[in-house]
Amino acid sequence: MKLRDVGEFGLIERIRRAVGRARQPGVVLGIGDDAAVLRTRPGEDLVVSTDAVVEGVHFRWDWETPHSIGRRALAAALSDLAAMGARPLGVVAALTVDPSLDVARCDALTRGLVDGSRRWGAPLVGGNLTRARDTALTLTVLGAVPRGRALRRDAARAGDRIFVTGTLGGAALGVARAARGARVRFAPEPRLAAGRALARLRGVGACIDVSDGLVADLGHVLRASRVGARIDADRIPVPRGFEAACTRAGLDARVLAATGGEDYELVFTLRPGVPAGPALARRLGTPTTEIGVVTATRGLRGLGPAGPRRGFTHF
Amino acid sequence: MKLRDVGEFGLIERIRRAVGRARQPGVVLGIGDDAAVLRTRPGEDLVVSTDAVVEGVHFRWDWETPHSIGRRALAAALSDLAAMGARPLGVVAALTVDPSLDVARCDALTRGLVDGSRRWGAPLVGGNLTRARDTALTLTVLGAVPRGRALRRDAARAGDRIFVTGTLGGAALGVARAARGARVRFAPEPRLAAGRALARLRGVGACIDVSDGLVADLGHVLRASRVGARIDADRIPVPRGFEAACTRAGLDARVLAATGGEDYELVFTLRPGVPAGPALARRLGTPTTEIGVVTATRGLRGLGPAGPRRGFTHF
Repeated sequence: MKLRDVGEFGLIERIRRAVGRARQPGVVLGIGDDAAVLRTRPGEDLVVSTDAVVEGVHFRWDWETPHSIGRRALAAALSDLAAMGARPLGVVAALTVDPSLDVARCDALTRGLVDGSRRWGAPLVGGNLTRARDTALTLTVLGAVPRGRALRRDAARAGDRIFVTGTLGGAALGVARAARGARVRFAPEPRLAAGRALARLRGVGACIDVSDGLVADLGHVLRASRVGARIDADRIPVPRGFEAACTRAGLDARVLAATGGEDYELVFTLRPGVPAGPALARRLGTPTTEIGVVTATRGLRGLGPAGPRRGFTHF
Repeated sequence: MKLRDVGEFGLIERIRRAVGRARQPGVVLGIGDDAAVLRTRPGEDLVVSTDAVVEGVHFRWDWETPHSIGRRALAAALSDLAAMGARPLGVVAALTVDPSLDVARCDALTRGLVDGSRRWGAPLVGGNLTRARDTALTLTVLGAVPRGRALRRDAARAGDRIFVTGTLGGAALGVARAARGARVRFAPEPRLAAGRALARLRGVGACIDVSDGLVADLGHVLRASRVGARIDADRIPVPRGFEAACTRAGLDARVLAATGGEDYELVFTLRPGVPAGPALARRLGTPTTEIGVVTATRGLRGLGPAGPRRGFTHF
């Protein structure tokens, strides 16, 4: 069955049923009116970010399940809230679809979005539906952060130490393997708890999420903060068995770890003297690795062949 | 010059320059970080709505200027805030473009968006840029409304009188004339001031904006409120010279006024006894016309041939 057989309002009804009547304290009015109504707590700022995934650019139907596409799109969007230190308030979804799209495929994509929305506490409170040639999902995520505590890109200072949560390179390796026909499971987790903990930490500097690769995203921090950095490439944390898997695939593990995108880890800086190690990992609820230092001298050094590359650009 | 010649970051820089450094009290952090940070006033709820316009579906490059496309997209999005009684806080824009799109065309579309953003007090605080086949602009608007005062679709009651601001049918007549090759200027104004005044009015019932046509949009109100309505078709307010222009174009003026979309007027109900007339028009800052009454009997009566029609649907 195709979408044109269920019609626009039929599809809206299917999405509304998938979302259900999940009551959440911050949601005053959800799906079904001209707009949704949300409520922050006293003393909070509102955080908002918008992010689109487009068929053929960000996803391919033959590389992953529709469920994974929907879930991953939300993970990517919520990662921006994590990078600001915000807790999710809700999400609105603008979907464009070709009327000849299979209903089952669209349902599965919606379920991926709704499952992620429940998992990460970001209720789907509204949306928009339009026909188009490209199937695309534009998610706008709303969050809240203690007033004045939003984590920023422009707050790194010379002498700060640079940390990364979790591991890098895994998603890029998965994409490379998918491109060669392997069935790969993409299930990124936005680092929401770590981001919220960082926003409350004394002595935190800048923060960004790794969506386009460490080199590209740390580059944004350095430019915004008007500083440079020296990275120890050997200390960039990678998943277990990563080097061997890269070797088998004929890929350079160091380059992949430094430039691969879509791991959605957080890169952040701490002022000198702020305790790191296991105490920091406990506080953030995730392993963290110190990978370098912020320098007054501009530019990014220490990455060798991975250094000059940039992340993904759209044209 | 094509977009691929300026590149993704070149285009982002052009948009950022068009936006400028417009400081606004509610904006804590604008374009340039992982997310924007906004601030509501104490005692306010947050209102959010997302809306997309797609090339070939909602606009055509040969029917209007790119500036008009950008401005009109924002008017449509802000109209949803007006319908909730909210004041704008900001807007985020997700743009998908074909890299072969002319830079001048894209710049003009952006200027239309930014001009509207200044005109209506909704600063552009963030966005997303992606390549795609379809040029599409997805706008998510954020607003604030006094706590618990958001205007809703489901609040009409039998006995309420039904009002509309301004006039209906003008946009649909314009589209019909554009389809026949006429140069038409589309410059809708979201009824933000009227919406805010309504949210503060004692005895207001339901409210919606007319984006898909009176029959379709009033229909949403009636279904959500589980009531019906009797409309006096002769009282639906139309622009000066509308009947004559419709006759010349071979169109039925009554049908167009009752079913034409994109006028972005507000349709709202008032409890019995709430003063209307010139006092109401003064309070809302716009002419208002009483066009019918809410009934306990479900369904929409009094529209004759325009009645059974529905508004625009996407597939």
